[in-house]
Amino acid sequence: MPYPAGRHYLQIPGPTNVPERVLRAIAAPTIDHRGPEFATLATEVLAALRPVFGTTGPVVTYPSSGTGAWEAALVNTLSPGDRVLAYETGHFATLWRDLAVSLGLRVDLVPGDWRHAADPAVIAERLAADTAHEIRALCVVHNETSTGVTSPVAAIRRAIDEAGHPALLLVDTVSSLGSIDHRHDEWGVDVTISCSQKGLMLPPGLGFNAVSEKALLAAENARLPRSYWDWRPILAANERGHFPYTPPTNLLYGLRESLAMLAEEGLDQVFARHRRHAEATRSAVRGWGLEVLCLDEHAHSATLTAVLVPEGHDADKVRALVLDRFNLSLGTGLGRLAGRVLRIGHLGELGDVSLAGTLSGVQLGLELAGVPVDPGGITAALRVLAAA
Amino acid sequence: MPYPAGRHYLQIPGPTNVPERVLRAIAAPTIDHRGPEFATLATEVLAALRPVFGTTGPVVTYPSSGTGAWEAALVNTLSPGDRVLAYETGHFATLWRDLAVSLGLRVDLVPGDWRHAADPAVIAERLAADTAHEIRALCVVHNETSTGVTSPVAAIRRAIDEAGHPALLLVDTVSSLGSIDHRHDEWGVDVTISCSQKGLMLPPGLGFNAVSEKALLAAENARLPRSYWDWRPILAANERGHFPYTPPTNLLYGLRESLAMLAEEGLDQVFARHRRHAEATRSAVRGWGLEVLCLDEHAHSATLTAVLVPEGHDADKVRALVLDRFNLSLGTGLGRLAGRVLRIGHLGELGDVSLAGTLSGVQLGLELAGVPVDPGGITAALRVLAAA
Amino acid sequence: MPYPAGRHYLQIPGPTNVPERVLRAIAAPTIDHRGPEFATLATEVLAALRPVFGTTGPVVTYPSSGTGAWEAALVNTLSPGDRVLAYETGHFATLWRDLAVSLGLRVDLVPGDWRHAADPAVIAERLAADTAHEIRALCVVHNETSTGVTSPVAAIRRAIDEAGHPALLLVDTVSSLGSIDHRHDEWGVDVTISCSQKGLMLPPGLGFNAVSEKALLAAENARLPRSYWDWRPILAANERGHFPYTPPTNLLYGLRESLAMLAEEGLDQVFARHRRHAEATRSAVRGWGLEVLCLDEHAHSATLTAVLVPEGHDADKVRALVLDRFNLSLGTGLGRLAGRVLRIGHLGELGDVSLAGTLSGVQLGLELAGVPVDPGGITAALRVLAAA
Amino acid sequence: MPYPAGRHYLQIPGPTNVPERVLRAIAAPTIDHRGPEFATLATEVLAALRPVFGTTGPVVTYPSSGTGAWEAALVNTLSPGDRVLAYETGHFATLWRDLAVSLGLRVDLVPGDWRHAADPAVIAERLAADTAHEIRALCVVHNETSTGVTSPVAAIRRAIDEAGHPALLLVDTVSSLGSIDHRHDEWGVDVTISCSQKGLMLPPGLGFNAVSEKALLAAENARLPRSYWDWRPILAANERGHFPYTPPTNLLYGLRESLAMLAEEGLDQVFARHRRHAEATRSAVRGWGLEVLCLDEHAHSATLTAVLVPEGHDADKVRALVLDRFNLSLGTGLGRLAGRVLRIGHLGELGDVSLAGTLSGVQLGLELAGVPVDPGGITAALRVLAAA
Repeated sequence: MPYPAGRHYLQIPGPTNVPERVLRAIAAPTIDHRGPEFATLATEVLAALRPVFGTTGPVVTYPSSGTGAWEAALVNTLSPGDRVLAYETGHFATLWRDLAVSLGLRVDLVPGDWRHAADPAVIAERLAADTAHEIRALCVVHNETSTGVTSPVAAIRRAIDEAGHPALLLVDTVSSLGSIDHRHDEWGVDVTISCSQKGLMLPPGLGFNAVSEKALLAAENARLPRSYWDWRPILAANERGHFPYTPPTNLLYGLRESLAMLAEEGLDQVFARHRRHAEATRSAVRGWGLEVLCLDEHAHSATLTAVLVPEGHDADKVRALVLDRFNLSLGTGLGRLAGRVLRIGHLGELGDVSLAGTLSGVQLGLELAGVPVDPGGITAALRVLAAA
Repeated sequence: MPYPAGRHYLQIPGPTNVPERVLRAIAAPTIDHRGPEFATLATEVLAALRPVFGTTGPVVTYPSSGTGAWEAALVNTLSPGDRVLAYETGHFATLWRDLAVSLGLRVDLVPGDWRHAADPAVIAERLAADTAHEIRALCVVHNETSTGVTSPVAAIRRAIDEAGHPALLLVDTVSSLGSIDHRHDEWGVDVTISCSQKGLMLPPGLGFNAVSEKALLAAENARLPRSYWDWRPILAANERGHFPYTPPTNLLYGLRESLAMLAEEGLDQVFARHRRHAEATRSAVRGWGLEVLCLDEHAHSATLTAVLVPEGHDADKVRALVLDRFNLSLGTGLGRLAGRVLRIGHLGELGDVSLAGTLSGVQLGLELAGVPVDPGGITAALRVLAAA
Repeated sequence: MPYPAGRHYLQIPGPTNVPERVLRAIAAPTIDHRGPEFATLATEVLAALRPVFGTTGPVVTYPSSGTGAWEAALVNTLSPGDRVLAYETGHFATLWRDLAVSLGLRVDLVPGDWRHAADPAVIAERLAADTAHEIRALCVVHNETSTGVTSPVAAIRRAIDEAGHPALLLVDTVSSLGSIDHRHDEWGVDVTISCSQKGLMLPPGLGFNAVSEKALLAAENARLPRSYWDWRPILAANERGHFPYTPPTNLLYGLRESLAMLAEEGLDQVFARHRRHAEATRSAVRGWGLEVLCLDEHAHSATLTAVLVPEGHDADKVRALVLDRFNLSLGTGLGRLAGRVLRIGHLGELGDVSLAGTLSGVQLGLELAGVPVDPGGITAALRVLAAA
Repeated sequence: MPYPAGRHYLQIPGPTNVPERVLRAIAAPTIDHRGPEFATLATEVLAALRPVFGTTGPVVTYPSSGTGAWEAALVNTLSPGDRVLAYETGHFATLWRDLAVSLGLRVDLVPGDWRHAADPAVIAERLAADTAHEIRALCVVHNETSTGVTSPVAAIRRAIDEAGHPALLLVDTVSSLGSIDHRHDEWGVDVTISCSQKGLMLPPGLGFNAVSEKALLAAENARLPRSYWDWRPILAANERGHFPYTPPTNLLYGLRESLAMLAEEGLDQVFARHRRHAEATRSAVRGWGLEVLCLDEHAHSATLTAVLVPEGHDADKVRALVLDRFNLSLGTGLGRLAGRVLRIGHLGELGDVSLAGTLSGVQLGLELAGVPVDPGGITAALRVLAAA
């Protein structure tokens, strides 16, 4: 009996609470990945993924974590020594940069304070300065899972276009896809990177690359060594509902179910629900008298909220208390935010009642940990939910 | 998409939220009920049931609803035309009376106002008046699921003893077993009736009779026709881990798991948790400015709370709104309470956070239905949870 | 590790191997039995049951074993002391007789040798002799699970009609329903009794009574005490998708799935598959040089085959060896057949390959137990499967 | 209703039939991969993997297919342009070679006829000829999934040692691990490559590298770009039960269960079972009058058997018929064996009865497809099973 009785609340910003429909779907017997039933499954799932990415083009699906999908985006489009521009929105932007460096790329990191979105103007300036067009790709994290800040991808696209720069636009939507509007085609994204365990409401184990025509062209000339991540044999095999390796069949069962759930609710309703929950969460935080990490009112994430814990308090002690006492998992502060923030995940399968329970648990945990908070926080959150 | 996104909250006073561990256990393949593996299962489960009933004697297990277990208690111990004393604690006490009448018994119903517990003094008086000892059994509902009132079984036992009356004591623990302390042996209960879908955290489908020596003796002379419900062939077969019919194997898998969960948490902790949740719920109700149905401070149920909706409001409209808007099921008013009360179930697998979510959902539903409530209700409930 | 590695083969004549689709359906969360989602489920399932029973009338559904459904048929239609004619087709016919006697009925049992079907001519004779029409009901087992003999219900109906006798016709289809053609309406059956764990491919826990108009009329006048089994409140509640007690929700989820499976395959195909498997099994038995219990070529059961083990051999030792060595459960000899027969169940979810595996396991078990058998048995069975 | 009724038999040489215990384990809710419960899971599973690989050293676990684990072995130990010696045992050896070439390695492929094991003498000769020790690694497939031929890894190790050559020994155990004895430490293997969906009885989605001290040393100097596959951060994080990325939690639940199953049966018993099933299968093939692909009596695979279909017959037509008629999946002929062979998988969770059913299905399929076979094949197989 490690934790108190009752359902666990997995309110980290991913993995998210996997719906029981999805868990039951995953428990179906594995089938022959070269047989006709599998081909139907794969064809159906690969088609249903496209609208979620906002694309009519292909979505390459890997047995991998999200970091694998980062690597895939880079090795398919770039060559050893290529220059890449990345934007330091937070911990994950930094990890992606590190990964690129490991692969032999040269990365310019636009510095950020982890409390604001990527600034299109700064990007425009950097690209304009690159008159030789040495920068081959721009790496942006749509929604920084470490900070709860969402960057304006459409505006970044416009900045690139206005700079007349040919760099590829690679966007990490790990914690936004299926929760926050993302439009791969309309926004001119070249590679959209994502994975299964956040807004898609699956266990971890699938990585994705939605790929533009321009990215496919780049793949023809890219010279980073690649085999597992190579888009081309996968896309060729996908034409017939196959994969060039044994695909993760049971997670694809789950994906079929979770895509059906998103379609049943309607993507617009899904996005609205996430915005409502984020607003209710911020109301609670402010009601408690605490500070939200994100400083830009236009950039608040709809999927998670990072809460600054007052000086003299250790966010991880609050988290441990909340887990031990209330069977509720919250996200830890990452990198330079270690011990400073709690991250409340409000994405994936989440109803208003579960959000209210979550915020109640956080309020109780803060109180019990000795963090001075106003108990009216929960009431402020309920007001937002009632108004919706 | 019949309901809003997110997990369903099944906060009726049973069936309760079945833990996912139990659901997965139930999904194991059915086995031969005459084979060695089944015998081990049955022997283990029948033994582990006993402490939950507070008995060292046998617990007869039926494939049935709880009403079946009511019928079983009567047909095993009584004969056509026998007199029975019952106590009108609420709707279910009345239904049990009706069932007894259908079987050809004569039932004296001690009238009650559905807002107080069964009164041992009244019972003592009735039994004392029965100098001919015509009354063969006393039927009491431990925890009235329709009202949220718990009756004092130990005191009732003393009343019987003080009256020197030989009547059997039959106790319905449908919504108390595994959630509120019940002591079959210590309290001298002759038949304890229960079922699977409340504190035992299982789907419906199992009925139980814990049986005293005196009840077994009565069964030898009882003349109501019986076959399916007959304790004797079941107890004989149970000796070898068998049943005289095909038993509901998969629910027994679930029962093994739920009994393990109760043992892991510890029955005393389980009972304390239910008391804490009931107190938090009453604090919320009073915080809203509403009235709890139960008028006796010593008789508040630890497993459900019936809330009176103010005149001019329809409790079922609130319930419908809460379901449609928050995917949260509440119990309806039964019998004479139809439309007058909401019943909030807080039993079975329930953590503090789920309770807080539930109470938040009720508060929002009341507000949106136009019932005037003070939004401080939820804060009052959290105060109780923090203090625990 | 009680048994050898690999899937268990549950080849008793019920419970049958529950399809994994059904097991996963059963593992869905329990819902409010008074809510709209449940009403839809119940309405859908109760409607889909009718064609499987061959009726356009109601099918009463109980949380019970099959023996409960036997009892229900009797207590709804008969009065204390009523005379009933039953036919001794085997062990289960005898148990049903015993149950009727326990309930206070007078039962005339037409003797049988457990190797032939019920004989319509004998029934006609008995009924003709009952000129006073004292016999109120005729109890027949459609498919004797203890012997593998199927009785001709349509011909029995004709015998009753020709005798001009008003007795009700009660038919046990426990091990035939959903596997062997049964036509409640067309054959003029008054109560068809069945349960969940055989051809319906569910775990045990549901009992059924399909009920004719005449039976409903009889229920108005029947005077055996009844409450749990009373058809009338159940049928009234079913009109709105409700039950008068808490229904076994999760088994109803499973029933929805298994009824869908039967509809997908098509009942005629399901019946043909069972006939083919029975023929293949008899070919194996005869190929081994052993004797099938059923002596009437027109009465071989399509759902199970009872095999006589030669003198000097103990069928239960063979069964134990087959279980220990091959993880395959076979049915034991019941009553007077104890130790004399093995019963091979070939009903429910069963494909040709699983049948071939089962017959291989039986052949190996017989050989290893020292029963002299011709190893060509399996080949003879495969010949039947190939010819289909 | 795409296929006939009954359980599907997934008798391809992987993915294998996932035990229902494992499927239910996988359906448990996903948890926080940074929390204490996950750390316990990871620590337990990573420790329990070691004996299955025959190592006391680390086993790196990836969210990937088996091809990912191939790539991981190469990128962690080699540098651009390095020479590698590979042995053409069949289709998968060739695919691995192709992958190495894609990564920029120079591969010498020892030609093979796809019907014999890798020959240690030839390897010794090749290595002896490499006096400059340019060959950095030897790639060998332990059990060729395309041909059913097992190569002698211990003898190959001796050949390397006798040649005094420093090449690393990389061994693919994709279709042998957990089914055929493999001893990473004792045989001096440097990287053992495997994945989840074969002898480990899981769905696809996990790749493994067991790693020797020498391999870890090589990893320090290897210069192929790597990030996702880099052993070092994974091994560092694993020390505390963590991963440097979000691990595939639910597959790890399944792995815990399947490792428990292997331990319950005992690895030696598991290996003996696979050998018995392989021998029974070869007896069936020969009984049918057909030819096993593998020509070396000492190299028959214990996990799959490739059967040559006589000239004039198309193996894939037989497979299609077996699937459509018997709901049984067989492996196709790969590469140069397309249309020429059927591959019968007999690995993972498989009991004698399921094997007998499988071989019955193959026999029936061959007959119905018009391939002349002696129906005594199945009897010959049963003889082997009886003798065990």
